[in-house]
Amino acid sequence: MTTPFTARLTELIAAAPLHSPDSLPYVRPAFEDTLAVVFAGWGEPVTRRVAALYPGGAEMRPDGSFPVHPEAAALLLGTAAHALDYDDVQLTSCTHPSAPIVAALLGAVQSEPELAPRTTTAYGVGLAANVGLGRVLGFSHYEKGWHATSTIGPLAAAAAVAYLYGLGPADAGHALALAAAQAGGLQRNFGAMAKPLQAGLAGCAGLRAAQLARCGLTADADVFGAKGYFDLYGGAERGEDPDDVEFAIDAGEISVKLYPCCYQTHRPIAVALQAREHLHREGIALERIAAIDVVAPPGSYLPLRVEDPSIGSEGKFCGAYTVACALIDGMVGLSHFEDESVRRPEVRALMERIRMIEREGKPDGLLRRGSPVELIARDADGGLLVHTEVLAYPGSPDNPPTAAQREAKVRDCLAYYERRTGNGIDYENFQAFVAGLLSPARRMPRAAAGD
Amino acid sequence: MTTPFTARLTELIAAAPLHSPDSLPYVRPAFEDTLAVVFAGWGEPVTRRVAALYPGGAEMRPDGSFPVHPEAAALLLGTAAHALDYDDVQLTSCTHPSAPIVAALLGAVQSEPELAPRTTTAYGVGLAANVGLGRVLGFSHYEKGWHATSTIGPLAAAAAVAYLYGLGPADAGHALALAAAQAGGLQRNFGAMAKPLQAGLAGCAGLRAAQLARCGLTADADVFGAKGYFDLYGGAERGEDPDDVEFAIDAGEISVKLYPCCYQTHRPIAVALQAREHLHREGIALERIAAIDVVAPPGSYLPLRVEDPSIGSEGKFCGAYTVACALIDGMVGLSHFEDESVRRPEVRALMERIRMIEREGKPDGLLRRGSPVELIARDADGGLLVHTEVLAYPGSPDNPPTAAQREAKVRDCLAYYERRTGNGIDYENFQAFVAGLLSPARRMPRAAAGD
Repeated sequence: MTTPFTARLTELIAAAPLHSPDSLPYVRPAFEDTLAVVFAGWGEPVTRRVAALYPGGAEMRPDGSFPVHPEAAALLLGTAAHALDYDDVQLTSCTHPSAPIVAALLGAVQSEPELAPRTTTAYGVGLAANVGLGRVLGFSHYEKGWHATSTIGPLAAAAAVAYLYGLGPADAGHALALAAAQAGGLQRNFGAMAKPLQAGLAGCAGLRAAQLARCGLTADADVFGAKGYFDLYGGAERGEDPDDVEFAIDAGEISVKLYPCCYQTHRPIAVALQAREHLHREGIALERIAAIDVVAPPGSYLPLRVEDPSIGSEGKFCGAYTVACALIDGMVGLSHFEDESVRRPEVRALMERIRMIEREGKPDGLLRRGSPVELIARDADGGLLVHTEVLAYPGSPDNPPTAAQREAKVRDCLAYYERRTGNGIDYENFQAFVAGLLSPARRMPRAAAGD
Repeated sequence: MTTPFTARLTELIAAAPLHSPDSLPYVRPAFEDTLAVVFAGWGEPVTRRVAALYPGGAEMRPDGSFPVHPEAAALLLGTAAHALDYDDVQLTSCTHPSAPIVAALLGAVQSEPELAPRTTTAYGVGLAANVGLGRVLGFSHYEKGWHATSTIGPLAAAAAVAYLYGLGPADAGHALALAAAQAGGLQRNFGAMAKPLQAGLAGCAGLRAAQLARCGLTADADVFGAKGYFDLYGGAERGEDPDDVEFAIDAGEISVKLYPCCYQTHRPIAVALQAREHLHREGIALERIAAIDVVAPPGSYLPLRVEDPSIGSEGKFCGAYTVACALIDGMVGLSHFEDESVRRPEVRALMERIRMIEREGKPDGLLRRGSPVELIARDADGGLLVHTEVLAYPGSPDNPPTAAQREAKVRDCLAYYERRTGNGIDYENFQAFVAGLLSPARRMPRAAAGD
């Protein structure tokens, strides 16, 4: 007998009581968003350095596959997807779910294109696993210092690929135990290249786990039992009861990133943009501001470890830097995280006047509906210049991205890809590329497709 | 500024204030022992199944290299080395140190044979890292349920390869942080194929970490700081103070396995063999024994999770099974862990009379000098038949293996290799094989060697 959590999750993988691809309208946008950030991250130093270790790793074929081992492909794709910290966020689990799951799935189908028709449902299975695991671990897992994307991601990715392979409950259980054996990743690596690497490692580990389980490699049948995954990776307290937790299969808690930096900067950026509009309307120059407080719910600034960014990637984890950029430029885009950008004197001068303040209380995760972030700016005499607040920032579940915002993000990513690599792919070809990846007939000869 | 532990360990890697290969007399036996168990484990199902995932992974070349990526070679070698649970044990850290370290080193030198002269010192660096990390984590790390071989192993292997590559302190720090991001592995996987796989994953992770750091992939500079490796992987309490811990570079705490099963069965086996001799001398038949108690220090039986082994590999983690084999057969060898062996009726009958009992008290690790294991056997009327105890079992630091015992183990491993794979390598060729791996001139053309 296994624990109910193991039984339910392995049953979900084996039976996949999910809707057909047609009724999973969130999958296509999620793949599109993830692949856009893969392209954007493709020329980043972290991706290039990882690729250098795998001969052929730099050569993405027109169908998205690589002349490398599927595991190396997953490592590369997951790393690229997270290289700019621009990929989607699952709020209850504090994870970037799509980078590992999509990376593992694309790694798997590159050598077995006949599995492509199962990709969309497999993504749903992986996402459901991700949500369930995150709900059980609760926020204290993240608070402890784990990078949840790379501790939960291997299991979510393994669940997705295990479904793709059609594993039964027993083998699915082994796949999860093999993935748990590879779970790891530290927030201490945030701001360094190791952060996106950790997302890639999660995808690679999940794919490897499912491949090994399919080959008959045995592992514990009940990795969620005593001294198992939850006991080893749990923080000071647990989240929801594993026996009752729901495996959510919709995208209701996914936040699509419209700014290419740490998720926890998005609410501060949104409130800064709103404050900027107010100041503009009132004709108040930024120079008049002597002190800015950005006040957020408890725990909001946990991953914002950087106070004095010296390179572009560190700027993604600096609250004051991203707020200053939003106030000065009225947007936060990929160009803000080039190395030279973080040294701009006017940004530095404004940063000195910004305080990032968390409210007192117990951190309660990322969802935080009903708990706003506020920006209060005062002049040198303490006079109030603006006090504004934001509940649902653009891209969040309660303020989801419009089609136009999604398209603008994809176009930005493709432009960045061209700027960094010298290679181009236009928006229409990108759309065809995504459709091809998700198509049942992927890479099958046209003549044989109707057989 | 980094923590003193990070500073001292990265300095150890960069400066390697170790003795020359000639003064490391334990390295050659450690490599020999590890390679012998690699051969023995080569035909095991776990190794074959892992090899199936990497085309070329089954084809070991005469020099010990493979036509696969170095990481895959390390994964295979580490898995094979631990496949039979016959590899050496480092007692303070509760780890099998050589499997991950040797696997990572051989993976690294297979594509860069010019580094071979540094292999022996690199092994010493890896072992020192392993010891230091284990001393800080203390026994509660293991008690929590972590497989210390695969949580400490990635960092030890990374330290070894980082020295091999000649990395400076900063890059060595990155290598350790990249290895920490891949630390994982659960005792729940004990008794399944996943256990040896976890040793292989540790070697693979360590090699990957050092390779990435050499390629300039950045990570946290101080992974032993707050919310870092020790905080995430520590158990209920910590071992030695990281600021003061010593990095031991000798083999004083290494136990060479003379029985191919879980380390924690070795003392029970040793006391059972001693009891058997006594019963034999006294002319007491095993049939007269109604009850056997095997009493050991607290925590001794933690990894012995199996009570009713149904396959050979499970027998390695069953205290009663290994004690019964020792009492009946007067030895415990590789043949005892074939699937059919664990079902022998006479062994099963004796097992029912054996109780494995831990003394009350606080577990204090594996070294346990001065704390014996006892065997007490009584007849049906409660009359004492034998009461005997063992302090230092064969192969342990206080009763180290003789040259003859080492040779016998190697010969057994090679015979087992031939039985399982149909390929043979004789003792003399094996010796030459090990010498070749450790030789500066490894795979360099003979004519060029003197240049």
